[in-house]
Amino acid sequence: MEEEKIIRFIRNKIHIKNAGVLMGPGDDTAVISYDSRHYLLLTADSIVENVHFTRDKATFFQVGRKAMAVNLSDIAAMGGIPLYALVSVGLPEGSLKLVSGLMRGMEKMAGTYGFDIVGGNLSRAPFIFIDVSMAGKVEKKYLKLRSGAGAGDDIYVTGVLGGTILGKHLDPKPRIEEGRKILRSVPVTAMMDISDGLSSDLERLAVASGRGFRIFLDSIPVSAAARRMSSCREEAVGHALNDGEDYELLFTVPGKFRDRVPERVGRMPVTRIGEITRDKVFEGVSGSGTFRMRPSGFSHF
Amino acid sequence: MEEEKIIRFIRNKIHIKNAGVLMGPGDDTAVISYDSRHYLLLTADSIVENVHFTRDKATFFQVGRKAMAVNLSDIAAMGGIPLYALVSVGLPEGSLKLVSGLMRGMEKMAGTYGFDIVGGNLSRAPFIFIDVSMAGKVEKKYLKLRSGAGAGDDIYVTGVLGGTILGKHLDPKPRIEEGRKILRSVPVTAMMDISDGLSSDLERLAVASGRGFRIFLDSIPVSAAARRMSSCREEAVGHALNDGEDYELLFTVPGKFRDRVPERVGRMPVTRIGEITRDKVFEGVSGSGTFRMRPSGFSHF
Repeated sequence: MEEEKIIRFIRNKIHIKNAGVLMGPGDDTAVISYDSRHYLLLTADSIVENVHFTRDKATFFQVGRKAMAVNLSDIAAMGGIPLYALVSVGLPEGSLKLVSGLMRGMEKMAGTYGFDIVGGNLSRAPFIFIDVSMAGKVEKKYLKLRSGAGAGDDIYVTGVLGGTILGKHLDPKPRIEEGRKILRSVPVTAMMDISDGLSSDLERLAVASGRGFRIFLDSIPVSAAARRMSSCREEAVGHALNDGEDYELLFTVPGKFRDRVPERVGRMPVTRIGEITRDKVFEGVSGSGTFRMRPSGFSHF
Repeated sequence: MEEEKIIRFIRNKIHIKNAGVLMGPGDDTAVISYDSRHYLLLTADSIVENVHFTRDKATFFQVGRKAMAVNLSDIAAMGGIPLYALVSVGLPEGSLKLVSGLMRGMEKMAGTYGFDIVGGNLSRAPFIFIDVSMAGKVEKKYLKLRSGAGAGDDIYVTGVLGGTILGKHLDPKPRIEEGRKILRSVPVTAMMDISDGLSSDLERLAVASGRGFRIFLDSIPVSAAARRMSSCREEAVGHALNDGEDYELLFTVPGKFRDRVPERVGRMPVTRIGEITRDKVFEGVSGSGTFRMRPSGFSHF
C-alpha cells in the first residue's frame, strides 16, 4: 500500500519537540496534554469529489454530514467527545447553493453530537474538497490507543459490517456515546474505528500492539446490505472484512472480563469476533479450517 | 465579492452552543477558553494547486513552507504563539517524491516557529491540496481581535507591502515574534494579518470595529518588488494596497500612545499609515486630494 509507505516516511521525518504531545501521528487522533483530568484530541480528515463522493450519487447535505462523521469516528475511537471543528472547503466558482447544503449537513452533525463549528476557510479549487479538523477531549482514564492489546485479549466490534456502499457510507453513525458506554462498563485495552475495512484495521491494531490475531469468520456480524450484495455467506463475509467505511468500533478486552462486555449498547450489537495472539500471525478460522489472511481493505492509493 | 457573501451566509447558519467559544468564525482564528491565563486559538487554511501555486513556479519545499506560513500568520494576527498543526494533503497517484519536499518545507517551519506537526491525513485527489489546521495559544491580556479599533486610533503596518508575486508569496515570514514584541510595548486595540491586500483587510478591520478609515497613501511602505513592477509611484502604491499575500500585521493604537510605538522591530519597519474614523467612510489621502476608496484586494472567487 503506497499510503502506508508515505505515512511511514512522514512519521520518520517528524520530530516532536513539545513535551505536551503524548501521541503524534500514528493513532486515530493526536493526543495532547490538556488539564489535570483530560487529554486534548486533534484529528483531520478530508472528503474529495470523485474520490469519496460523486455529485450524482450524494446530496451536499449528505457530503457535509459525512465530512463531519469521519472525524467524529476518530474521536470516538479514542474514547473521546467532540468539542470544536474547523472546516476548509475548496470550491469551483459560483457555488453558493452547494455551500448551503454542505453547511446544513455539517450543522446537523454539530447539533446531534454537541460540538461547535468555530471556523474554517473557503478556497477556490478545480474540484470540491472538504477538510475537517476536529478537537475533542477525553478523560485520561478513558483514553484508548491502538497499541494496548495483549496476547489472549478478546476482539470485539460494534454494529454490523460490510456493504456500506449501498447507503451507510453516506450516513455513518459515529459511535461516540456507544464507545463511552463500553469504556464505562469494561476495561478495554485497545480501540480504533473501522474506516478502511475490518481486516486492514485489525491488522493495524495488532501491529501497533506488537501482536497477531485470530479471527472467527463465522462470528463476524455481517450487515443486511453485505448479504444483499452477495450470492453466498463467504462472499458476504468478504464484504464485512474488506469493504470499509463502516465507522464502527474495533476493540479488545482481556478474556477474564468477557462476562462484563455488554451484548448490546442500545440497539447496537457488540460482537466477539476473535482473539489477539502472541505470535504475529493474521489468521481467519472458519468451519472449513484456518486461513492465513491477507488484509485487503480500502487503500487510498 | 462572492466569498464575503458565502462567509456571511455561513456565519448566519452557525449557532455556537459551547460557552467556551469566545470567538467563532469571523476573525483570523477562533478563540476558545483554555486555562486561567490563556486562550486556545484554532485556525485552518488551504493551498490549492493552480490556484495558490503552480508546479512550474514553486518547489514543493516552498509549497509546504507556505501552507504553514498562512496559518502561522493567522496565529500572529491574534498575538499568539503556534503549538500544534494537522496537515491534510490531497494527492494524485504516485506522489511519494512530492510528499518529501512538502514535508521538508513544513518541518522547516515547525523548527523555526517551534510548533509540532501532530497528525493529518492523505487523500487521493485529482489536484494537489494542502489544508493545514493549527492550534495556538495566547495570554488573555494579549489577545487582539479585529473589532477593537476606536475612532481616532492610528493605523500601523509592519514591513513593506506589495509585489509579493515576485517572490515573497513563496517565502512569507509570519510575524509571530514581531507581533508579540509590539503587543508588549504598546496597547494595541485591534490587529489582523494582511493576506488579501491592505485595502481589503483594512476595510474588514474597520467594518468589524464599526468604524471607517483614512489612509495616507504617501506613507504606505512600498516594497522594492512593488516598485520594480511599476512605472510610477501611484502604480507602486496600488500594488501595496491591493496585491495581497503580504502576511504583515495591520494594527491600531490610540493616538495618545503614538510615542510608544517602535519604529522598527528588529530590522522590520513599523509604519503609521492612517487613522480610524468615527464615520464609516473609507478614504485615501494623498498630495493630490482625498479619494473615496473601493477596496480591490484579492478575492478567492
